[in-house]
Amino acid sequence: MLSRLTPPPRPTPSTLRPQFMTQSTLRLGAFFYATGHHIAGWRHPSSEADGGINLERYVGWAQKAEAAKFDLVFLEDGTGIRDSNLRSSERTARSTHFEPVTLLSALAAVTSRIGLVATTSTSFNEPYNVARRFASLDHLSGGRAGWNLVTSTTDAEAANFGTGGIAQHADRYARAEEFVDVVLGLWNTWDDDAVVIDRESGQFSKPDGFRPLNHRGTHFEVRGPLNISRTPQGQPVLVQAGSSGPGKDLAARTAEIVFTANQTLDEAVDFYRDLKGRMAGFGRAPDDLKVMPGLFPVVGRSEAEARAKFEALQDLIDPVVGLALLERMVGGFDLSGYDPDGPVPDLPEANGAKSRQRLMFDLARREGLSLRQLYLRIAGARGHSQIVGTPAQIADEMETRFRAGGADGFNIMPATLPGGLDDFIELVLPELRRRGLFRQDYEGRTLRGHLGSRPPAGFGAAAPRPAG
Amino acid sequence: MLSRLTPPPRPTPSTLRPQFMTQSTLRLGAFFYATGHHIAGWRHPSSEADGGINLERYVGWAQKAEAAKFDLVFLEDGTGIRDSNLRSSERTARSTHFEPVTLLSALAAVTSRIGLVATTSTSFNEPYNVARRFASLDHLSGGRAGWNLVTSTTDAEAANFGTGGIAQHADRYARAEEFVDVVLGLWNTWDDDAVVIDRESGQFSKPDGFRPLNHRGTHFEVRGPLNISRTPQGQPVLVQAGSSGPGKDLAARTAEIVFTANQTLDEAVDFYRDLKGRMAGFGRAPDDLKVMPGLFPVVGRSEAEARAKFEALQDLIDPVVGLALLERMVGGFDLSGYDPDGPVPDLPEANGAKSRQRLMFDLARREGLSLRQLYLRIAGARGHSQIVGTPAQIADEMETRFRAGGADGFNIMPATLPGGLDDFIELVLPELRRRGLFRQDYEGRTLRGHLGSRPPAGFGAAAPRPAG
Repeated sequence: MLSRLTPPPRPTPSTLRPQFMTQSTLRLGAFFYATGHHIAGWRHPSSEADGGINLERYVGWAQKAEAAKFDLVFLEDGTGIRDSNLRSSERTARSTHFEPVTLLSALAAVTSRIGLVATTSTSFNEPYNVARRFASLDHLSGGRAGWNLVTSTTDAEAANFGTGGIAQHADRYARAEEFVDVVLGLWNTWDDDAVVIDRESGQFSKPDGFRPLNHRGTHFEVRGPLNISRTPQGQPVLVQAGSSGPGKDLAARTAEIVFTANQTLDEAVDFYRDLKGRMAGFGRAPDDLKVMPGLFPVVGRSEAEARAKFEALQDLIDPVVGLALLERMVGGFDLSGYDPDGPVPDLPEANGAKSRQRLMFDLARREGLSLRQLYLRIAGARGHSQIVGTPAQIADEMETRFRAGGADGFNIMPATLPGGLDDFIELVLPELRRRGLFRQDYEGRTLRGHLGSRPPAGFGAAAPRPAG
Repeated sequence: MLSRLTPPPRPTPSTLRPQFMTQSTLRLGAFFYATGHHIAGWRHPSSEADGGINLERYVGWAQKAEAAKFDLVFLEDGTGIRDSNLRSSERTARSTHFEPVTLLSALAAVTSRIGLVATTSTSFNEPYNVARRFASLDHLSGGRAGWNLVTSTTDAEAANFGTGGIAQHADRYARAEEFVDVVLGLWNTWDDDAVVIDRESGQFSKPDGFRPLNHRGTHFEVRGPLNISRTPQGQPVLVQAGSSGPGKDLAARTAEIVFTANQTLDEAVDFYRDLKGRMAGFGRAPDDLKVMPGLFPVVGRSEAEARAKFEALQDLIDPVVGLALLERMVGGFDLSGYDPDGPVPDLPEANGAKSRQRLMFDLARREGLSLRQLYLRIAGARGHSQIVGTPAQIADEMETRFRAGGADGFNIMPATLPGGLDDFIELVLPELRRRGLFRQDYEGRTLRGHLGSRPPAGFGAAAPRPAG
């Protein structure tokens, strides 16, 4: 079939215990992008095309995901319209959308169990502000907040912040490393039990229950303390997506979820082993980080029905939009001068999203795709795994990757919203539950409770006091 | 009585038509600070002392204010704990609280009519991010967002952003002026009717319906467009509080609400005339800006009951907390070396909140207050008008200032939450309604609809296209 991973033999018992794996069920995220992950999804009747700026739609989608017991809702973000050509942006649903932390704050008020993960860039924000906002979201949601830390990778975003183009990869990561340390430090400026509210004595929080951070680094000087107390989760869950060496080290040191894209089972297993293998060096147990790659499913009761659904979406792709997507995915290079039916040209290494660019080149080479074929190929999953098939076929793929030690779970990217989400919930989830791969109900009340992980900085421990 | 304005004679018809006034009823904001505006409010049984980090409490307060038809909820903010002495902060409820834009986003999901105004500083944020967040809040709330633009005034806040102390007053305002222009410009990068969602043709937004801003100024370079479309209000309502010359000019040019503090009726009328008089120079009508000073009411069925309520709160003031509050109000100067029962010393002019410092000195001089008397005097209203009395007395004061042309409405600062809010709603609002000074129900669906104002940039008009 069009977009299968490597063929999925049902695993034999001897393959069921790969290194590093202890959990017995999948973690599942509901990844909401625009009004569906397929680039033409908004044109399909199964989408609510105004969802990007209509809270009611998002409430409906989030409440469906919660009723289905997803671990989390995941919102990506960019700090600007990322197409260099605004005429192509006019033809996508993604040009206008809620800022994700405000959106999840609204959803916090109308959901009660599902985790809420928002993306915020370290490139154009101050760590004090980011630490506050996610701490606030964690309090608002009763312990369900997660921060997907990214570095911004496009000049189109940088141009909204006067920085004269995106910083070099190494500089972005150096800033991100220090940024996350400051944020973790600020979340630790309050003790767990600091707030005592003793009306009688007038002591609102216990003596010395919060204290300065006094961070002085290369990029930031931040005194602290934070003006919001320690959160229900101790600290919000950190999520990361970087797949470069520095990206993997940062994740191994600080993340509890890694969102990634791997095209083949071998790549997925290699990535998983590499990442979890790095954790011991930072004093962490492998199970405290969940690898949750993106997964773009198109589900049909039969393979033919699934394929027909997929082809209906593919037929809606506007060539202008497809090419603009591809340009963004290979690092912002202008592809308009190339023959759409010719091979993918050799391009210099991107300064932006290196691993995404590499993924595109590998995919084109492996499958021998022309430019047009490549944009058609990525219009749905955008480099993530794409499975078009029956519930059993999709469950097979998920089970195979899970049992082979290539994933702890998946971020499900519905092609359209709510249609694609409904399909996954109604058709695939029962099959996963039948196989014992997904739980029947929530077991915890916090995002970290759903994950079953421990935070890097040690929830419950008081932060070290600064010397001064 | 302790804390009256100038005596309020009931106005005669001849005094009823001051220059600039056209509206016939008051605008009312519910100003929520910590768990009550009185610094010891959290210690009083009529407060929900954990409200700063408990969403349920805020939902309750906001829904009460909405049921009472308040025009808006108003949240102040600081980018850090503002006491230089953390030991005093441990003894206040304000050391831990939600970040206001996230909190109002949550409240947007569970309210439907009341306006939602959050404070965000121009000092330690990027205009693109601020424009996005408030546009997002306006979409989330269906057109109820307001941004209270402030410049940060304390070194304690600056220390969280590595800027080596707060900027000079003139520099803060120069940055704020340019900041607000960029934000207004970004809100105008999308036409009102840009989003068309034509599934058939594939045109999500109309051709050239959004465009770059291409701002290049002294402090910011911002290309745009915003990645969120024009909001239900066209643009969120701008709120300001500056009372210096540059502050008044900025407000006269861009604000639709001015939040201010005046101690006497004469001062209030002078301020009001001065501010509204500046508007013509910016091509605006006086009625498009509402002057809404803070008002701290303590309500009793009798004057004795009101006074007893107030004294009960005053008795709960911790001297350490009172002095720390005063230090902050006079510009961050250390007062610990002075005799609490001696006169307020001469201090150099503050670089921080100049008008607040001046207010403190004027108050102390006018009433001949010692340091201790001064902090007791401001522990409730913090420089805003304080009225301790019966519903009729409070309504008298409000009516007098309104009819004399000193206010278009008030931001009500309940001493405790929810107790002080309940008192105002149950006792004072019926009196105001009896006098025809406050409406029975909402007339519009947006914050701007409640205000009856027009935005400075002209809602409905397409933004001018940049030349290039």
